[in-house]
Amino acid sequence: MGQIIDGKNISKLIRSEIKDRTAAFTDRYGHEPKLAVILVGEDPASKIYVSNKHKACLQTGIGSIVIEMSEDTEETVLIDKIKELNEDSTVNGILVQLPLPKHLNEKKIIEYIDPRKDVDGLTLANSALLYNGNTDCLAPCTPRGVIEILKKEGIKISGKHAVIVGRSMLVGKPLAMLLLNENATVTVCHSRTEDLGAVTRTADILISAVGRPGLVKAEDVKDGATVIDVGTTRVDGKLRGDVDFDSVFEKDVRITPVPGGVGPMTITMLLMNTLQAAEMQEEER
Amino acid sequence: MGQIIDGKNISKLIRSEIKDRTAAFTDRYGHEPKLAVILVGEDPASKIYVSNKHKACLQTGIGSIVIEMSEDTEETVLIDKIKELNEDSTVNGILVQLPLPKHLNEKKIIEYIDPRKDVDGLTLANSALLYNGNTDCLAPCTPRGVIEILKKEGIKISGKHAVIVGRSMLVGKPLAMLLLNENATVTVCHSRTEDLGAVTRTADILISAVGRPGLVKAEDVKDGATVIDVGTTRVDGKLRGDVDFDSVFEKDVRITPVPGGVGPMTITMLLMNTLQAAEMQEEER
Repeated sequence: MGQIIDGKNISKLIRSEIKDRTAAFTDRYGHEPKLAVILVGEDPASKIYVSNKHKACLQTGIGSIVIEMSEDTEETVLIDKIKELNEDSTVNGILVQLPLPKHLNEKKIIEYIDPRKDVDGLTLANSALLYNGNTDCLAPCTPRGVIEILKKEGIKISGKHAVIVGRSMLVGKPLAMLLLNENATVTVCHSRTEDLGAVTRTADILISAVGRPGLVKAEDVKDGATVIDVGTTRVDGKLRGDVDFDSVFEKDVRITPVPGGVGPMTITMLLMNTLQAAEMQEEER
Repeated sequence: MGQIIDGKNISKLIRSEIKDRTAAFTDRYGHEPKLAVILVGEDPASKIYVSNKHKACLQTGIGSIVIEMSEDTEETVLIDKIKELNEDSTVNGILVQLPLPKHLNEKKIIEYIDPRKDVDGLTLANSALLYNGNTDCLAPCTPRGVIEILKKEGIKISGKHAVIVGRSMLVGKPLAMLLLNENATVTVCHSRTEDLGAVTRTADILISAVGRPGLVKAEDVKDGATVIDVGTTRVDGKLRGDVDFDSVFEKDVRITPVPGGVGPMTITMLLMNTLQAAEMQEEER
């Protein structure tokens, strides 16, 4: 019988720590850490995400501004806005909500964000630091959330075999780097992997991040493993993970549910990155 | 009974291809691709490496200049020399021979090399490109040599399980990225890995790059595996790899010897990177 890892609760715990650290920051420097989110267009899902980020900031004492730009915003106008926020010393974190409308080149635009304010950890500069083993760079929020879940649950990482399914720049690869920094043995699998089950069965820590509901079944998981489900796919209006929860939960595993597992951690890590960016910027002054 | 992978021969083959491509380049653009190597100090091993690189350039039609600087060279003087070579349009590749004397900060100095001329692939900019899955960036020479060996030997990489022992920025990590680009399932092990043998036994392609003679024994290798030995340690005046060659060779494996395996490929890939850098620079003009 499995044991549920309650991501909501861990997230609540960390947000309360962030709230305390934010209060201390504001006390010390006389201003709040502040996040600026740029939202281009009218995508309903993006609007909800941005609104949730805004609320989470306010709940933890972090200042938040949301800059809404029209669907047909020109590239140069968006870039000028980013440059303005880079220069604005009251803004500590900048996030461009993705996806952007099709006429805008996401990769190019992200690179205009000052790496010190890049709280999504998506610039080449921050990814290079992470790849090079830097342990206090701004790392992408979701993989950072996975690490925090493992740590808060007291799951040993060092020396253990972590198997990641998925090699995206948003989750798979940065998570591999973060796990290597924690001294795990790390395997990255993907759509081309032959006999995926044979590999996942060797995992002490199994993380799936591909968005294929039911991909990981009971027979793909070792007894005693920790299973972290990063996948989120909407099926018939319900959110489903990559892991066939019901069958895997029959085993002796610790497992994150979907929803209520990794999901709540992503915004929490955005708050953490914003606070960390603010602290780094103040130390540099 | 094993089968030896003859790195010397593969290297010879590739150098002959490079020679042809270099001749075509020189024909087309009216000048040779050119490598500049900076050697600081009197380290005897470094002197031999630099001399070998110089000879290899000349043998393949690549221009080569060696800049020797005294042991006590100041940082600013070295950086000014790099800047001068960055500006020099007749120089296509720049390499600072490592290790540098202790008073010089290698990481800092390397960053002054124009990434387009960084034929060792060591700048943050090039490592970020590699990590982000760019397939035509300048990648570090030794891991690139490993990939070329596998390709020239006709060893299937896509879908196969590659296990790397060692996570250095010179070999382990860039090799993981190159193998992911080739669609291998990739595992990175290191000194903290628990039960290393259990992991290496799952490898279709096993690469060891740690510098511990005899680390990989027959029982750590699966029948049918390809074993690439990147380790080189001098023991009683003899070069030894990480793999216990004699016992592993008894099995049904393909294996690179030390010396004569990966070693010869490193300089060959430096030639390849120099030629590639020159071609990219000409295309940009």
